[in-house]
Amino acid sequence: MAERVAVIGVGLTKFGELWTKGIRDLAIEAGAKAMEDANMNSKDIDAMYVGNMSAGRFAGQEHLNALIADQTGLNIPSTRVEGACASGSLAVREGMFSILAGQHDIVLVGGAEKMSDVSTAQATTGLMGAADEEWEGFHGLTFPGLYALMAKKHMHDFGTTREQLAAPAIKNHHNAIMNPIAQFPFEITTEKVINATMVADPLTLLDCSPISDGAAAIILARESVARKYTDTPVFIGGTGLSTDALALHDRRTLTALDAAVRASKRAYEMAGVTAKDIQVAEVHDCFTIAEIMAVEDLGFFKKGEGGKATMDGETQIGGKISVNTSGGLKGAGHPVGATGIKQAAEIVMQLRGDIGKRQVSGAEIGLTHNVGGSGATAVVNIFKR
Amino acid sequence: MAERVAVIGVGLTKFGELWTKGIRDLAIEAGAKAMEDANMNSKDIDAMYVGNMSAGRFAGQEHLNALIADQTGLNIPSTRVEGACASGSLAVREGMFSILAGQHDIVLVGGAEKMSDVSTAQATTGLMGAADEEWEGFHGLTFPGLYALMAKKHMHDFGTTREQLAAPAIKNHHNAIMNPIAQFPFEITTEKVINATMVADPLTLLDCSPISDGAAAIILARESVARKYTDTPVFIGGTGLSTDALALHDRRTLTALDAAVRASKRAYEMAGVTAKDIQVAEVHDCFTIAEIMAVEDLGFFKKGEGGKATMDGETQIGGKISVNTSGGLKGAGHPVGATGIKQAAEIVMQLRGDIGKRQVSGAEIGLTHNVGGSGATAVVNIFKR
Repeated sequence: MAERVAVIGVGLTKFGELWTKGIRDLAIEAGAKAMEDANMNSKDIDAMYVGNMSAGRFAGQEHLNALIADQTGLNIPSTRVEGACASGSLAVREGMFSILAGQHDIVLVGGAEKMSDVSTAQATTGLMGAADEEWEGFHGLTFPGLYALMAKKHMHDFGTTREQLAAPAIKNHHNAIMNPIAQFPFEITTEKVINATMVADPLTLLDCSPISDGAAAIILARESVARKYTDTPVFIGGTGLSTDALALHDRRTLTALDAAVRASKRAYEMAGVTAKDIQVAEVHDCFTIAEIMAVEDLGFFKKGEGGKATMDGETQIGGKISVNTSGGLKGAGHPVGATGIKQAAEIVMQLRGDIGKRQVSGAEIGLTHNVGGSGATAVVNIFKR
Repeated sequence: MAERVAVIGVGLTKFGELWTKGIRDLAIEAGAKAMEDANMNSKDIDAMYVGNMSAGRFAGQEHLNALIADQTGLNIPSTRVEGACASGSLAVREGMFSILAGQHDIVLVGGAEKMSDVSTAQATTGLMGAADEEWEGFHGLTFPGLYALMAKKHMHDFGTTREQLAAPAIKNHHNAIMNPIAQFPFEITTEKVINATMVADPLTLLDCSPISDGAAAIILARESVARKYTDTPVFIGGTGLSTDALALHDRRTLTALDAAVRASKRAYEMAGVTAKDIQVAEVHDCFTIAEIMAVEDLGFFKKGEGGKATMDGETQIGGKISVNTSGGLKGAGHPVGATGIKQAAEIVMQLRGDIGKRQVSGAEIGLTHNVGGSGATAVVNIFKR
């Protein structure tokens, strides 16, 4: 039995439109905070994994593995990992594997995205790189358009209402008020969501996660090493990754992300837990419909009942299962490459019990659900105290 | 002691300006050939790793991990890895680590780049994503310009001559004649190199590797599984990855790639060999000066003597050490994300002894040297029979 891999430090920048900070600044800040949290300095780090989706298109900069490693002042092995909006969680997996493979003891996993240096049109076009360029992007589809198709079908098949669709956004903006890094820490109402500017029917502006700048980092260590740095290691109990057709029209269904279902099965199996054991989850709410599908795909609620459950408060802090205590992508922001790592940091802080006002009391098992594009990549990671 | 990881199949497309093929077609072709070579079909594959530098900028398409996995008709875990021009070798490392970590038995590692769908100017700008965009690209530097600076300094410090500088290109074009996938299978002469169109003094067109389309794939398996598919597994004995400052002006020296020196030390140590044991090597000759520095950095020749050694024929097939039997990046082509995997495929075929006319007789230990940008990432992998 291989040694387990623990998270021993987390670091986050503010998420938002950070006009005075470039991707270097963001990466340095998140990495330094994670090292401080882990009571270490950069000399303790053996290797880095960097999650980033599209610095090539957003900043003309590929090769972020070296750019960011160089900021530590060391010449350590560093690797960029990409799977669209799931890049962060893929980086967590690869960092974990490198430790399990016996190659490293301590690994810094960081994710960053700087999206506000390009126009909204350029950002939207850049994000379409996560969909099928030849079969979707070229023909004018955008991500709100893709998720609007899923929302319409979910409403048609299961009777999900417009009010239910708004519920994840309202909850997540509320949670964001308790999260100091959140981009949108303010209350919204059902009326405001429904009457906001239409983006792609039925999704309005308040159904959509924003374009954000930000970075997140966590420090992984093998169990024997972890205990030297912290008394409260949080272990990665399981990880699952699955893929699906890139283009929506090639999928089995529009109302579930099969890749997420498969990834969660693998992660539950590896961690030796079931959906019922999960107390706190960060799920990929790039659009409100995405959170509704997520809580179904992960097995928290039956297919078709995610909207009702959310509206009934079952996913609020202290509900049946606390979902997106950070504010999610919707309330906290969605700097793409950072998102999966921010999710992991949130769950780690919840399981350590040091997250402040949004603490889920007694949380021992948590999960992150990170999706690439409209569901062609899904990564589910499970964390345990 | 963990089980070793073997390469049990290789597949390559033609390299060149392939107007009728997109990145999907190229990836499918290389993957299918590798599976055929390994006597298996896609159902045998547990996971994929994809090396690609910049499909986002060359084709508007990120998220290649899912795009390419979907072509297999399976929903297996798939991860894209990027480190500029070293992306392919990074993918080999991550595939290897995932097996050593006990996560997979058989992994397809593929690399592809489709560069000819954009203009040469766009390709050159895209490639600058591998350098420092803020400190180099923004100010007008190009890759030929960066390597020209290194060439000038090497000539100044060590007396490397213009004729010696041309020698790697002449050898590599010659070797390319024996490689059916090569983009430039024809002889060139010192006179032709020196008198070709100037790109960045002292580098002419014939000192520079081309813009190419192409894909390469190899299949990795843990040792116990490998024997079920082949009697001639080739093992990855060692791997080294190191990084350096992205911008040339921040480096210790212009005449060596310190990242490559460090990566090779780590790889030699892991494999339990020294530079003297290497019989055949594929090195990253994106420009002629790069091969001269590579054979020095890897310890095959003393610093400053790489040009003379190459001109004296010591790196030709059957020389002291056979370098770039494939034709290298210069003669065989350089579809960026595919290059590191093509290098691995070449060494594997050399060690299996089934590579045809360009066979290095009795080759038992080989090496790949794959560089990102102007040297900020370097990966050295060592292969053994």
